[in-house]
Amino acid sequence: MTHDKQKSGQVPDNEMSGSTVARRKVLLGGLGLMGGAAAGVLGMTPAVSAASNLPPNIPEWTRVLGSGVLTNPYGQPSPFESNVQRRTVDWLTPDRVASISFTPLADLKGIITPSGLVFERYHAGIPEVDPHQHRLMIHGMVDRPISLTMSDLMRFPSTSRIAFLECPANGGMEWRGAQMDGVQFTHGMLACCEWTGVLLSTLLAEVGVAKQASWILAEGADGAHMSRSIPMEKAMDDALIVYAQNGEALRPEQGYPVRLINPGWEGNTCVKWLRRLEVGDQPWYQREETSKYTDLMPDGNAREFTFVQECNSVITSPAPEKPLKHGKGKYWVEGLAWSGRGRIKHVDVSYDGGVTFREAKITSIVLPRALTRFGIELDWDGSPMLLQSRAVDETGYVQPTYQQLRDVRGTNSIYHKNAIHTWKVFPTGEVANVQLS
Amino acid sequence: MTHDKQKSGQVPDNEMSGSTVARRKVLLGGLGLMGGAAAGVLGMTPAVSAASNLPPNIPEWTRVLGSGVLTNPYGQPSPFESNVQRRTVDWLTPDRVASISFTPLADLKGIITPSGLVFERYHAGIPEVDPHQHRLMIHGMVDRPISLTMSDLMRFPSTSRIAFLECPANGGMEWRGAQMDGVQFTHGMLACCEWTGVLLSTLLAEVGVAKQASWILAEGADGAHMSRSIPMEKAMDDALIVYAQNGEALRPEQGYPVRLINPGWEGNTCVKWLRRLEVGDQPWYQREETSKYTDLMPDGNAREFTFVQECNSVITSPAPEKPLKHGKGKYWVEGLAWSGRGRIKHVDVSYDGGVTFREAKITSIVLPRALTRFGIELDWDGSPMLLQSRAVDETGYVQPTYQQLRDVRGTNSIYHKNAIHTWKVFPTGEVANVQLS
Repeated sequence: MTHDKQKSGQVPDNEMSGSTVARRKVLLGGLGLMGGAAAGVLGMTPAVSAASNLPPNIPEWTRVLGSGVLTNPYGQPSPFESNVQRRTVDWLTPDRVASISFTPLADLKGIITPSGLVFERYHAGIPEVDPHQHRLMIHGMVDRPISLTMSDLMRFPSTSRIAFLECPANGGMEWRGAQMDGVQFTHGMLACCEWTGVLLSTLLAEVGVAKQASWILAEGADGAHMSRSIPMEKAMDDALIVYAQNGEALRPEQGYPVRLINPGWEGNTCVKWLRRLEVGDQPWYQREETSKYTDLMPDGNAREFTFVQECNSVITSPAPEKPLKHGKGKYWVEGLAWSGRGRIKHVDVSYDGGVTFREAKITSIVLPRALTRFGIELDWDGSPMLLQSRAVDETGYVQPTYQQLRDVRGTNSIYHKNAIHTWKVFPTGEVANVQLS
Repeated sequence: MTHDKQKSGQVPDNEMSGSTVARRKVLLGGLGLMGGAAAGVLGMTPAVSAASNLPPNIPEWTRVLGSGVLTNPYGQPSPFESNVQRRTVDWLTPDRVASISFTPLADLKGIITPSGLVFERYHAGIPEVDPHQHRLMIHGMVDRPISLTMSDLMRFPSTSRIAFLECPANGGMEWRGAQMDGVQFTHGMLACCEWTGVLLSTLLAEVGVAKQASWILAEGADGAHMSRSIPMEKAMDDALIVYAQNGEALRPEQGYPVRLINPGWEGNTCVKWLRRLEVGDQPWYQREETSKYTDLMPDGNAREFTFVQECNSVITSPAPEKPLKHGKGKYWVEGLAWSGRGRIKHVDVSYDGGVTFREAKITSIVLPRALTRFGIELDWDGSPMLLQSRAVDETGYVQPTYQQLRDVRGTNSIYHKNAIHTWKVFPTGEVANVQLS
């Protein structure tokens, strides 16, 4: 596989380009502007029979039988979509087992991220866990410690919810002004899936938690023993012990056969390949919540336990990967918004770098702590633009500017960058990542 | 691939079976009942350090580095899940290009069906459509006929919705009492995805529909020219011209690059590989809406244009593929409910063949014309059971018994079978498909 060797900025573009004509012109019905396959029908009288409407050049696929059922018992994308894949940034991590790949946001639609395209983050690679041998242990300050097989776990009441998953380092390269070339790299440590499993509160009720217990350690079965301390309040609220993702079993890189999902919280807390939950009365201060996944402030102190992923948004098209290819005319500008604190209330879009905003339309279902899709129709006059989106969540929190964020946080941080993002659109239709204060 | 040669009843069972102990016993914490890997921790004092909690037999995957990022740039399920796949029934269709494969409902969770497992139905196989060459033509009784490239189509305002897709022949083998062995075959012409595209009403506004127009013909680019007549009322309501499914481009077998989705209506009306929409003032009476996809009544007449998929439900676990494997004790009984007329209001479950019912819990989001997941906790005493689910939708429609359905429809039908389904559970925990009146 050589896919991953593509550097940012060299992403091949498989944008369909059958027509380079502005949509408005096509819609006015100029005959010379139509594709050849359709030109033959334009002068026809209305409501003629189906047979006589066949265009003059009938494509091959209309004249032959296609492949039959179970060509793929487990289906795959069209070969024409092979460009839509996860990608890495070589300089970002020293090796493949402690690395990141990014979700191709520019090509995605709606709010569900297909499981095969969900970003990856490992600290010791993907363990090959045998679900028949795997156990989930719950112990510590509990009355009845237990060890569960996967089969045991599936006998508990189950629940499903759609929630986003975001690495707190998403966009972290941009704190000091780096400008990653593409929305896959600026915001692609982000996904949204339907997660199914057992509420952690259900399991805790079964084991009987001691009154003084206030924290839970979640530990992964991977070689890094990835571990995070989770406050009891979250455990008793909506934390979910998950065995299914988008309807089927968790994918190996997502923690197969079982992981923790803390909706709206740092992806890193959603421990994968979960093997152990220990109940205690204080946090454990593991490596991944002390030396990492804390926010270094301007004064040199670090904020610890900043669990919530704050309200954020980004325009996914146009983007560096999705230039405006039809010249002046109408386009659909769209993007994603999300908040770890609840539902998205509304999203505003600016064409002039934040001087003026207009409200975008929400075009998906709106769920708490899930990605939300927005869009707005642009009638482009060919001038340069500074495209921005700004989301507001149901708590009233407004996504900040870079300046507002840096006034508080400085530029030492890696994590929790949720500033308003700017795409510069050139008269050619090309799009670049720029950073406005 | 030999997967598809498995006959019903010979479906291999990869149910995890690490423990055969009733959940209740496990939860009481009997030491001898635990898996070996966990036995070492049960006598420990609470809240000891993480390191000393390692079980005595540390599995291989915890001691080595796993595979790195981009092992699969487009991810795949765990090899342990290879049994979860679409399947055919050999006797049901004469050849592969005009055949059906079924969704493995017993293994699915939540409401989203992963795109690789969505049932297939072809009339001339899967055409290999080149999206750069493909055109969607809209013509007939319109002011400005147009031919759209895929790139043109993506410039229109876009919207996303989660909706079920069901072949009207789902369960059709059971009208006269056939008893398919497994929920994959009794109800597996069913899926639910997030669909993204352009509202048909948006495109019709662009072309300008004549006042007297009342029907639209949708025609596929496949060799069968699959065509259906759609009333203008549906076209102007929620019919969607779809290019994305579960976040990514439509799969080839689902109509790549563009299809029609009529939420809540017969899957057959949701024409795939859509190449033509003709506006007219009467239905076209195409083959697939006259000789097929009509309901033959007891008197020999056929109902035509029965578009809506009525309220239905089925228990997906236990099922013939998912026996009760732990003897007496607690289990999570779950299933799916759906209605082409709107939201599911509630679902009742019976253990005694419909004599008594108790209300199940809804465990997913509830959306109009989408699958809805329900579940109920069973404390099984080992007696035989006749398991049923009965769904009610927001219009007040109650899913009928077989007797109620046959009183009206007789047994000539193939389509629109939505009777209450019964699984017989034996004291061994095995499950069989039986038909109660």
